[in-house]
Formats: sequence, C-alpha cells, structure tokens
Amino acid sequence: MQAREMLSSHPTGTDLDESALAGCIEACFECAQTCTACADACLEESGGELDLRHCIRTDLDCADICETTGKVLSRQTEPSWDLLKAQVGACMKACQECGDECESHADHHEHCRVCAEACRRCEEACDQLLNALENV
Amino acid sequence: MQAREMLSSHPTGTDLDESALAGCIEACFECAQTCTACADACLEESGGELDLRHCIRTDLDCADICETTGKVLSRQTEPSWDLLKAQVGACMKACQECGDECESHADHHEHCRVCAEACRRCEEACDQLLNALENV
Amino acid sequence: MQAREMLSSHPTGTDLDESALAGCIEACFECAQTCTACADACLEESGGELDLRHCIRTDLDCADICETTGKVLSRQTEPSWDLLKAQVGACMKACQECGDECESHADHHEHCRVCAEACRRCEEACDQLLNALENV
Amino acid sequence: MQAREMLSSHPTGTDLDESALAGCIEACFECAQTCTACADACLEESGGELDLRHCIRTDLDCADICETTGKVLSRQTEPSWDLLKAQVGACMKACQECGDECESHADHHEHCRVCAEACRRCEEACDQLLNALENV
Repeated sequence: MQAREMLSSHPTGTDLDESALAGCIEACFECAQTCTACADACLEESGGELDLRHCIRTDLDCADICETTGKVLSRQTEPSWDLLKAQVGACMKACQECGDECESHADHHEHCRVCAEACRRCEEACDQLLNALENV
Repeated sequence: MQAREMLSSHPTGTDLDESALAGCIEACFECAQTCTACADACLEESGGELDLRHCIRTDLDCADICETTGKVLSRQTEPSWDLLKAQVGACMKACQECGDECESHADHHEHCRVCAEACRRCEEACDQLLNALENV
Repeated sequence: MQAREMLSSHPTGTDLDESALAGCIEACFECAQTCTACADACLEESGGELDLRHCIRTDLDCADICETTGKVLSRQTEPSWDLLKAQVGACMKACQECGDECESHADHHEHCRVCAEACRRCEEACDQLLNALENV
Repeated sequence: MQAREMLSSHPTGTDLDESALAGCIEACFECAQTCTACADACLEESGGELDLRHCIRTDLDCADICETTGKVLSRQTEPSWDLLKAQVGACMKACQECGDECESHADHHEHCRVCAEACRRCEEACDQLLNALENV
C-alpha cells in the first residue's frame, strides 16, 4: 500500500506521528479485507457449525468499521482530533472483539488464524495512534 | 425505508427499544446520502470559496461513519453492546461536527441547510439510542 | 430521504431526468439497508438451514454494490456517463439476482419477502435510470 | 495484505486463477486508499485551482467502486460470474478514468502521480481478472 507516500505528498501533511498514522491506515484496509474474506470462509465452512455464526457477525462489523476508519484517517485536511479519537477507539474495540473471536477458532480454521493476526495488528496500530492523538 | 419491517421480521429481534433502533438506522442511511451529496454540491460551489473546504472534509467523514454505523446497527445477531456504544458515540460526534459546519453555511447554501437538518436528526437519533444502550 | 431536495439545491444540477435519478439514489440506499439486515436475519435463522448460505452471500454483495452506486449517483459534479452506465448496470444485475434468491425464500421468511421487494424496486429504478442515461 | 493466504485457506476456494483474483483484490483495496487520500490532497491543494475539482470527483467515485469491488471479490461462496464481470468491468472503467485524470496532474502534484500508478495497477488487475472470468 502507498499510505506513507500519500501522506508525505500531502500539501499540508499531518501533525500526528506520520509512521503511526500510515501504519494504522494500512492496518485498517488490510483488516477490512481479511475480515470480509473470513466472514465468507466461515459461511462456507458452516455445515451446521453454529459456533461460527458469532464469528461471521463480528467479522462483518469489524470489516465495515476498519474500512471507514481507514478512509477517515486517509484525510489530512483540517482534521477533528476528537472525532478521530472516537472513531479509532471504536475501531480498536472492533478489532479486539473480532481478534478474540477468531483466535478461539484458530486451531480449527486457518482463515480464522490469519484473520486473528490481522485484527491484532490493527488493534495495536489503533492503540499507537490513540497515543499519538493524546499528544497532538 | 424498511428498517422497522426488517427488525420485526428478524428471528430473534433486539433487546433494545425497537423504535429508537429503527429510527437511528434510518437516520444514519439518510445522513450518509445527504452528506455525500452536500460534499459534492460544496465542491461544485467552490469558485474559489475556500471556506467550503472544511465542509467537504466534514461531510465525507460523516457520510462514511453514518454508513458504517447504519450497517452495524442493522445486524441483530449476538450484538456487542460495548462496540455499539463506541460506534454510535463516534457517529453522534461526526453528526454534531458536520451539523455545526453545515449550519454555518445554511444561509448561503440550501444544500448545507438540508444537510445540517439531516445531521441534527441523526445526532438526536444516536443520542436516543445511546440512552437505550445504557439501559439494556 | 432527501435525495430530491439535495438534487434541486445542487449548484449545477443534473442533465438526467431528476425524478429517475433521485428515485434510483433512494432505492439504492434503501436496498443497501434491507440487504444488510436480511443477510443478518438469514444468518440467525440458519439452524443448519444450508439453503440460506447463498442468500447471505447474495445479500452482502447487493448491499455493498447498492451502497456504492447510491453514493456515486449522489454526485453531480462533472459526471462520466459511461462510468454511471457501467456501475448502474452492475447494480441492476446485483438487485436482480438478490431479488430472485430472496423471492425463493419469501414464503418461509418475512425478511426475505421484504428484501425481495426492495431489490425489485431498486432493479426497476436502475432500469429507468439506464434509459435516462441512454438519452442524455 | 493477506488476500492470497485468505484465498488458499477458504474451504472451497475459487475456480478462478488464484493469482489473478488475489492480485485484483489487493489492487482494489490499495487503489481505494490511494484515491481517498488523493481526493483529500487535491482538496487541500486547491487555492482556487478549479482544475482539481474533476480530479476530486473522479477520485471519490474510484475509491467507492474499488472498495466495493474488493469486498465482492473477497467472497468465494457460490459466486455469480455474471455479476463479477459487471462489477469488475465498472471498476476497470473507474480506474481508467481516474488514472487518466490523475496522470494529467502528475507533473504538478506528487499525490496525483502516485495515485495514477495505483489506478493503472488496478485497471490492469481488473483486465486480467476479466480474462480469467471469460475462461471459467
């Protein structure tokens, strides 16, 4: 992904730590893709495996929230720090819950294992960006 | 919109106040459409009107966040109240900021006036749903 | 929804039939909400009902495509008629397939019945807009 | 991104060329991020630069369409080849138009140069996937 290049070519740039911001943008888009694919793999998987129902719901929410957070973070024009904190906070929560859920199926389903890792990376990236947002 | 009909035909339904939930879902989708259109109208408007730049950015964020919030709220299967609170809280903040910004242009641009009203309705609907979420 | 008010307050407006355009925008957002809710209701429904798996996949695709089509159509600034034709054509196809699938479950699941109707309305609205796009 | 890993861990997998499919998914998500950032950079840029207005509109459409196409392609459960052809075709068109527009500003704006390249990669990836779809 080109989040770093796009950030450094922005006319005004950002007051945030550029590395934390670019890392969070890329983690959000990656997690949105992985969760979308995991929801679908779980759906195909379920030969009546009802325990994957919760995983599908959690994947879909996490995909939507990561996608929107990634887009909002991609904009540097006159940002609202309060809004970013709220949205990144919601995204961190979504990744935490989806990471927990997918992790509990990681031994049985490789797609849940890969997805849990993407959620953990995004949760961590949100956490680092929230720290950067506290100090801006 | 059919949010109410879809809610009442869901196999398990919701533990939330159904009217507050359906109202918030519909307000989110309505606000997503209005903010998308307002960003574009402001873009066309700007014969160098630089004061609309902030309005465009705010509209785009609000559209993305409302859309995602509306989709997350449309799911009733095994919800996470904590995640809903965080996402609806972020949505309320986005609508508040976008409503303020659009309101400040309402006398000059009819699209900003209509958009400010949609933001206010959605902000109010989020507030009512947050109250319902406190009591679940 | 305020699609009509937003259209008529746009600084340059549209060369398309305004009623066909506003109708299609609103049908797209409505269908995105309904399909998102139907996918979730089908997920909850499935106590091993494997025949709903295809319905869930179709609902999710239709929701994503309708949402994007509704946003693209909400912009009037310097449109590309060719791109609109391609995207509205894809949306009409998505609604057709999802309408067929949901209709086949309409007798057993009220949410599929309501969703099939939303898909049919959106398919029809896309068809009318495609006609308007041929004559622009 | 993990599109390849997610594809190979899907219970049924895909009948399409796996490399063409994974490449297109990743190009779509990458292009959605880049176009979102380019629209914002162009917005900030415009000290009255009215020629960037068209670029912003084109960027926003391309971002929405790539995002949705990337999500639809991430699902392997019982796909509709006809729908995929229509949506990937619309995406290829969006990338072509946005690539042309951004390329025309590439000498003056680095973000447009980077974005034009992302659009070209995604256009090419869509073209390859359309070929694979013809042979399925």
